Amino acid sequence: MKIAQIAPLWETVPPPSYGGIELVVSRLTDELVRRGHEVTLFASGDSQTLASLEAVYPRALRLDSEIQERPLYEVLVPSQAYQRAAEFDIIHSHVGVWALPLAEVVSTPTVHTLHGRFSRDSSEIFGYHSRQHYVSISDAQRQTDLNYVKTVYNGIDIANYSYYPTPQDPPYLAFLGRFSPEKGPQHAIAIAKKTGWRLKMAGKVDAVDVEFFEREIEPLIDNKQIEFLGEIDRADKADLLGNASATLFPITWDEPFGLVMIESMATGTPVIGIKMGSVPEVIAHGKSGFVCETYDEMAEIIPAALELDRKTCREHVKNNFTVTQMVDGYEAAYKKVLQSSIMQSLMKNNRFNPAQLFSLLR
Amino acid sequence: MKIAQIAPLWETVPPPSYGGIELVVSRLTDELVRRGHEVTLFASGDSQTLASLEAVYPRALRLDSEIQERPLYEVLVPSQAYQRAAEFDIIHSHVGVWALPLAEVVSTPTVHTLHGRFSRDSSEIFGYHSRQHYVSISDAQRQTDLNYVKTVYNGIDIANYSYYPTPQDPPYLAFLGRFSPEKGPQHAIAIAKKTGWRLKMAGKVDAVDVEFFEREIEPLIDNKQIEFLGEIDRADKADLLGNASATLFPITWDEPFGLVMIESMATGTPVIGIKMGSVPEVIAHGKSGFVCETYDEMAEIIPAALELDRKTCREHVKNNFTVTQMVDGYEAAYKKVLQSSIMQSLMKNNRFNPAQLFSLLR
Repeated sequence: MKIAQIAPLWETVPPPSYGGIELVVSRLTDELVRRGHEVTLFASGDSQTLASLEAVYPRALRLDSEIQERPLYEVLVPSQAYQRAAEFDIIHSHVGVWALPLAEVVSTPTVHTLHGRFSRDSSEIFGYHSRQHYVSISDAQRQTDLNYVKTVYNGIDIANYSYYPTPQDPPYLAFLGRFSPEKGPQHAIAIAKKTGWRLKMAGKVDAVDVEFFEREIEPLIDNKQIEFLGEIDRADKADLLGNASATLFPITWDEPFGLVMIESMATGTPVIGIKMGSVPEVIAHGKSGFVCETYDEMAEIIPAALELDRKTCREHVKNNFTVTQMVDGYEAAYKKVLQSSIMQSLMKNNRFNPAQLFSLLR
Repeated sequence: MKIAQIAPLWETVPPPSYGGIELVVSRLTDELVRRGHEVTLFASGDSQTLASLEAVYPRALRLDSEIQERPLYEVLVPSQAYQRAAEFDIIHSHVGVWALPLAEVVSTPTVHTLHGRFSRDSSEIFGYHSRQHYVSISDAQRQTDLNYVKTVYNGIDIANYSYYPTPQDPPYLAFLGRFSPEKGPQHAIAIAKKTGWRLKMAGKVDAVDVEFFEREIEPLIDNKQIEFLGEIDRADKADLLGNASATLFPITWDEPFGLVMIESMATGTPVIGIKMGSVPEVIAHGKSGFVCETYDEMAEIIPAALELDRKTCREHVKNNFTVTQMVDGYEAAYKKVLQSSIMQSLMKNNRFNPAQLFSLLR
């Protein structure tokens, strides 16, 4: 298949550290190339890929401190990609609303992966383009009524994650994520305080979250029971998660996917999460962790989590959340969309072209 | 001709008070209908027009206090319009960068009117789409290298502006405009202070300009020599300008057009401006006002401005800046773009279709 991948311009593909969308785009694109597809990646010029790279702008916007009107740049990558729409069998957009108007006016069908949560405003815009083809990254994410083709979970390359057969002694709980109210670091601390467990926390503090961090988190960090490691790199993340007895995922919002959960389980460490968003789909309750109704219940379940088989945690990721499974999912989505697009075009033109049909379905 | 007009969703067409772009779109659209064109206006649902109105959203965004992510909505109006591109001979966009990617992928040609100033970022985006067809609203505005079809000055309906044959006694100078550093209210006050002239000022203070207003303007308002009228309505604007001995236009930026100058001259009041942006194109130097090199020179020239013929000021607007002339300009631009679009398509398809050519040129 001839496939165009449209990535956001904000971050390099793959991202040097933070950047969930760009990481998924990178893994997907490279694996599609390995499977023999002809893939063109539209992304920032400093991206690295096995696909053919088309860069409308030389570097990731994040690195460009001169830029003041960021939304203006959102049109650039889709603009370049759709000018070449006729060259592709399918276009796969990762840029949210910005590709929607273009997808409506070209004949090549587009698959849109929803990477974020719906807001009131984005629901309005997606809703107007509801007949486009959407992939959700969890079933729970489907909070606006759209034409969903499939749920395709994000996947990791399990070979990049070491297995940690036993937790470190002295034991501790892990928290990894942005320090924002939605990610619930305040609940992680409360759970540790209540149970007497040590807690090691890592992640970045965005500018908008500095006030929250200074008011609700920093005063509770004693670097004895409650330890704060700041932003850490990939290797240190694996160590933080793999050496923990359990990872806490005490979110306060409907997480669309939650990569940290599968990263933790891949190292063998079970995850204790709250029943919101994707959590019940990602954690195998009672096997690779626990899905709790309340933050109190999260504290009470810790002893049970210690009894879980760490090999089973890793197996759960291997069986459900790998790059292989993710790319299988997207290949199936592409085929489904191509079929419906061909059927629509047949009905519209009122003529049947078996050669075209079979060439695209092969 | 079948023409689509694409207006911003921020404000109603025409706007109840402030909103230069929407005012121009309104006058242009209605006059095109009067001249027999089949016009479809894509704008907010609370707009009023002689054209056929297509509204993707029920009301102007300005009135919708719930909206938090305004840039997302910029895609809506162009999306609706371009889905119907094949129905039109020409599409006329007033929404800046947001229509550019769509204009590249449909076969109906688009004319883009540039209503604002270029920023570093907007230059980048327009530059990437430089072969599109652009109309500038002054020659001075052309600060990025694009495919300019024509300059079409904004126009007013002179019948809506009374003629004020003599200025009020006691005499005063007028300033009308946003109270922001670019519009130069600080220079207007300095000119009044230096010469002893009374100065009447009106206009709105945007949230971003409150600090500037409180620091540099407010302390100098004594409501004797320097009078501040706040935001005023259309009738009061005409009185403010028409009763003045001269209007000051002491901008500090490259104004792309400057509607206030033609409104003042229409009432008979000459304009004293600084040589920046469109000013030398809009003021007939020594006839309808003066174009000065410095703010000091603006102060010195006031006595000469009093000697100018007020009828000549009004005639200057009648001869150059009316809705009739503006619509003449746009009709010529549409024809030029259609011709070049047909020639391109002929060269591309390598076949000559005289019927199509003549039908579009009639």
